[in-house]
Amino acid sequence: MDLNMSRLLLGNPLATSEDVYQRLSKKKALAVFSSDALSSVAYAPEEILLALLVGGAAMLKFSIPIAIGITVLLVIVAISYFQTIHGYPSGGGAYIVAHENLGVWPGLIAAAALLIDYVLTVSVSITAGVGAITSAIPALLPYRVPIALTAILLITWANLRGVRESGTLFSVPTYGFIAIMLTLIIGGITQLLTGSLATLPAAAPPPVPDGFQIFILVLILRAFASGTTALTGVEAISNGIPAFKKPEADNAGKTLIAMTILLAVMFLGASFLAASLGVTPSEEETVISQIGRAVFKAGLLYMVLQTATALILFLAANTSYADFPRLSAILARDRYLPRQLSNQGDRLVFSNGIIALALLASLLIIVFSGETHRLIPLYAVGVFLSFTLSQAGMVRHWNSLRSDGWKWKAAINSIGMVATGIVLIVITASKFTHGAWIVVLLIPIFVWVFYTIKQHYMSVADQLSLSQMQPEKWEGRATRKRYKVVVPISSLHRGTLPALHFARTISKDVTAVVVDIEPQVTARIQELWPQWCSDIPLVVLESPYRSTVGPLVKYIEKADQRDPKRGPTVIVLPEFITAKWWHVLLHNQTSRLIKRVFIYRRGHSGIDRVLIDVPYHLRY
Amino acid sequence: MDLNMSRLLLGNPLATSEDVYQRLSKKKALAVFSSDALSSVAYAPEEILLALLVGGAAMLKFSIPIAIGITVLLVIVAISYFQTIHGYPSGGGAYIVAHENLGVWPGLIAAAALLIDYVLTVSVSITAGVGAITSAIPALLPYRVPIALTAILLITWANLRGVRESGTLFSVPTYGFIAIMLTLIIGGITQLLTGSLATLPAAAPPPVPDGFQIFILVLILRAFASGTTALTGVEAISNGIPAFKKPEADNAGKTLIAMTILLAVMFLGASFLAASLGVTPSEEETVISQIGRAVFKAGLLYMVLQTATALILFLAANTSYADFPRLSAILARDRYLPRQLSNQGDRLVFSNGIIALALLASLLIIVFSGETHRLIPLYAVGVFLSFTLSQAGMVRHWNSLRSDGWKWKAAINSIGMVATGIVLIVITASKFTHGAWIVVLLIPIFVWVFYTIKQHYMSVADQLSLSQMQPEKWEGRATRKRYKVVVPISSLHRGTLPALHFARTISKDVTAVVVDIEPQVTARIQELWPQWCSDIPLVVLESPYRSTVGPLVKYIEKADQRDPKRGPTVIVLPEFITAKWWHVLLHNQTSRLIKRVFIYRRGHSGIDRVLIDVPYHLRY
Repeated sequence: MDLNMSRLLLGNPLATSEDVYQRLSKKKALAVFSSDALSSVAYAPEEILLALLVGGAAMLKFSIPIAIGITVLLVIVAISYFQTIHGYPSGGGAYIVAHENLGVWPGLIAAAALLIDYVLTVSVSITAGVGAITSAIPALLPYRVPIALTAILLITWANLRGVRESGTLFSVPTYGFIAIMLTLIIGGITQLLTGSLATLPAAAPPPVPDGFQIFILVLILRAFASGTTALTGVEAISNGIPAFKKPEADNAGKTLIAMTILLAVMFLGASFLAASLGVTPSEEETVISQIGRAVFKAGLLYMVLQTATALILFLAANTSYADFPRLSAILARDRYLPRQLSNQGDRLVFSNGIIALALLASLLIIVFSGETHRLIPLYAVGVFLSFTLSQAGMVRHWNSLRSDGWKWKAAINSIGMVATGIVLIVITASKFTHGAWIVVLLIPIFVWVFYTIKQHYMSVADQLSLSQMQPEKWEGRATRKRYKVVVPISSLHRGTLPALHFARTISKDVTAVVVDIEPQVTARIQELWPQWCSDIPLVVLESPYRSTVGPLVKYIEKADQRDPKRGPTVIVLPEFITAKWWHVLLHNQTSRLIKRVFIYRRGHSGIDRVLIDVPYHLRY
Repeated sequence: MDLNMSRLLLGNPLATSEDVYQRLSKKKALAVFSSDALSSVAYAPEEILLALLVGGAAMLKFSIPIAIGITVLLVIVAISYFQTIHGYPSGGGAYIVAHENLGVWPGLIAAAALLIDYVLTVSVSITAGVGAITSAIPALLPYRVPIALTAILLITWANLRGVRESGTLFSVPTYGFIAIMLTLIIGGITQLLTGSLATLPAAAPPPVPDGFQIFILVLILRAFASGTTALTGVEAISNGIPAFKKPEADNAGKTLIAMTILLAVMFLGASFLAASLGVTPSEEETVISQIGRAVFKAGLLYMVLQTATALILFLAANTSYADFPRLSAILARDRYLPRQLSNQGDRLVFSNGIIALALLASLLIIVFSGETHRLIPLYAVGVFLSFTLSQAGMVRHWNSLRSDGWKWKAAINSIGMVATGIVLIVITASKFTHGAWIVVLLIPIFVWVFYTIKQHYMSVADQLSLSQMQPEKWEGRATRKRYKVVVPISSLHRGTLPALHFARTISKDVTAVVVDIEPQVTARIQELWPQWCSDIPLVVLESPYRSTVGPLVKYIEKADQRDPKRGPTVIVLPEFITAKWWHVLLHNQTSRLIKRVFIYRRGHSGIDRVLIDVPYHLRY
């Protein structure tokens, strides 16, 4: 990108010293860290209903018990993370906790699960947000993929500029969503009690045929698995403890409790209303939109509901834009990912990580046609795998720390570990064929990639190490000036003279080489030669197949073998640089070709060949 | 492309000395040079009918007089080219004739017209050939674009390998087509005379309303213009004279006469049969196929007809694969096109021209959905423009030569010039809105591109010229060895030591520079420095915005200004080369970035900056 263009789009560079942290109050922290968790109310109840609907409308009655089960699980997970917050007050992401307490491999598995989870958070939240929009404006339904991609583009742009985790800005959609959801739930329940809300008559359950019970059990487990996506993002607060005002851990713990209560109330309320109203999930309209339309009618409050839902979902996607690049940078610092991911751009953001996240999330949206429902089976696997590993790490942590009440703490985290572990198995098994297999396949691939990259960096460090080298040897050789130098030329003109001249100044052993492709050009060079370069021998190479590079490679490799102690032949390349970039199309790029060929050829006897570029700039 | 892969696909390289010419007998020459002209029988009669059909079925009766008019034009053009053959026995393409006799601009206009014509020959012939196939096998109709592109791919591949203009190989489709067409015409007329062929009753012409005559005239002119595509390729023999056996011009002249008679007979015969049978052109089936089905019924002969038609049309496309790259190479030699177009590949073919032709023809086929009828309005403009310019050039030629009977010769070419000139105007005017405007727009654009490229090469030659230079000045400066040298390093390890060492050997004024991005890395370098490079001063550059290149550019430009007589600062760049190409993804490409930045910056006081690459190859 042109520098000025880049400035216009991304803003002026920020100095490293401007990287200061703004501490958050509990109220603002709730807005910043809970959008991911709270926004899942927009799709989780719907996913329970969708999974049950496969068995017929009569199955929908199971939604309430399933929702209650998930709420119990939420409380268990929240208590576990409450402990993590106090155990890792400097921020305890699953990678760090698993890596420190369980070792390298569990750490890498957790990292893989988290990276996949972050990408899916973006895809799922964006498509669900677009679902809220298309529910209100059905005419936009055919454009959900382009709308979703535009949303990703905007969020990516904002993050490349560097959005601070601004509590004030984030408060509006988060608290707006909480307020409108509570209004919806209270209003809905009141209308239900006063009987002013039309509900569908409960269908009498059909008799269950023998052998059908297994099928029902599978459906219930699948519905439960789908519903567990409500728990995604619960861990966010435990990652962000250092952002809280002092005392950090205490404030974070209180915020976690508040978030858990809000999430439980909204999730149960929405599930209860959906069941009471007899809402049937459909492709065209989300369940929340259907409830909203029933309770608020088609008025202003309904539009507020849909807007707030879309906004909090986009905000949830935005949280991954902080988490994914940060984890990538940590992994890159530990040499498990390319080091470019740890480069902070001039706006102090990890630009490469942000772009990678945007591309991956967009790819998923395109592949799954922007349908939230098709992405859900991939989502919960990574989340619960990281939950389980994190809890296991915490058990180990308390066990090795043995501080006051460590047994209690370990017991609580053990319950969390077992619960999330069982849920992980349920999710993977029941959703395997629906897409969970993709994640099951990807995690070992990620881990293998991490490992391979680490091996590469270790081998490079080893190869570059000075440990076997003697400084004296290098200092002593400074006087030597007997390089074998070859200057390949295609013609004798102002563009080639500077190269020939530079070659003269670094060695007495210079040879000019011309590959004979056009005999009249070669003849002209030979004619001019004595006048201009009488001190440099000119060698003409035959080229029966009109290749420039072939004969040159042969000649230089032969020259390398002559007096090998003097090192490989140095190549001095004249290169003329055109005034306009498109002029490049009008010239044979022979110099570049030669450079490319020789730079990738290893030199003899451990010393690599030096290539010298002598440019000549055309002025117009 | 990998070298071995390329050998497998394209064959072993051929030496320049293998570029021998195989002389052709008249019979073989007819096969080689006339496929373009003769194959137009497959679409020209149909285009006449299509143009007339716009005015209703009653208009179709005009097709016979129009066909006769076109045949008269054919004879005039053929006689003109007969004279060109004897005037330019070494090959008289329109570009050469116009350039030599009329000057640069008419020459360039002719060249533009010819290049466009060659591209259209490929597109039109291929789509018409595919039309012959889909007429016989209607199920393939929806796939005509992929079939056409596959055909282009195969022909391109054959030409990149280098198909010799093998008379024997080319004879089969050409003589096969001639034989089956003559069989069709004789058989059809016999059946007509014996009354065994069902013909549609001639519709009584409806009364012509006032003011409608103009419309009828326009339709007739359009039909005529469409039919003139029958003349495309008549000039081919005059381009190929040197390929004939001696006496070249005589043999070529006789071949031209034979081709003209064959073309006239087949064109008139096909037009007559189409009119007599009352064939209505349709999108699904070509006119030739309809005639063939009526005369041969659905038997073996019909399949032979369709196969031969498709083959000669593909052969016609193939002729452009010789003409387009050859003309491009001539233009490139004259510096009107990029010189890469005059590079013969290792199979002795002008590979770049072949690839350019294939891409352009494919593009046209895609844009016009593979419909011959939509390409026709673009086709004849270029052809008749080059005819006219070529005839005008010949008139001038005879006029300046004033050899025996020059007045007669000039008169004949004048008739040709006037006739083709009028036809050019008719075609352009009557088909302007149908697509001829594209060619009218493209020709001046091409000419402008030719001119701009020529200007560029002349300016480069001027800038590179040695005429203002003094050899002594260059020889004399060979002893100077006071370069200012800067070695940018990111770390001190085995990969950077060779660069520091090389810098020492070419100058006493070496400075190592490190940009301080990671303070702990900088500190480590400073700590190791005295032990390894005590003789080289180390400069640390601040980088508040974490950019490596910014501070470096500033530093080096400042260094350039110090003692400017010693020339711009030389940069010695350590670069480590990874063992596997994909390892590149794991490293910051800072060396490459620095190289790119500095090679495009012009040096001070007319001397450009030398860049020295000191690679260090990782072994694994």
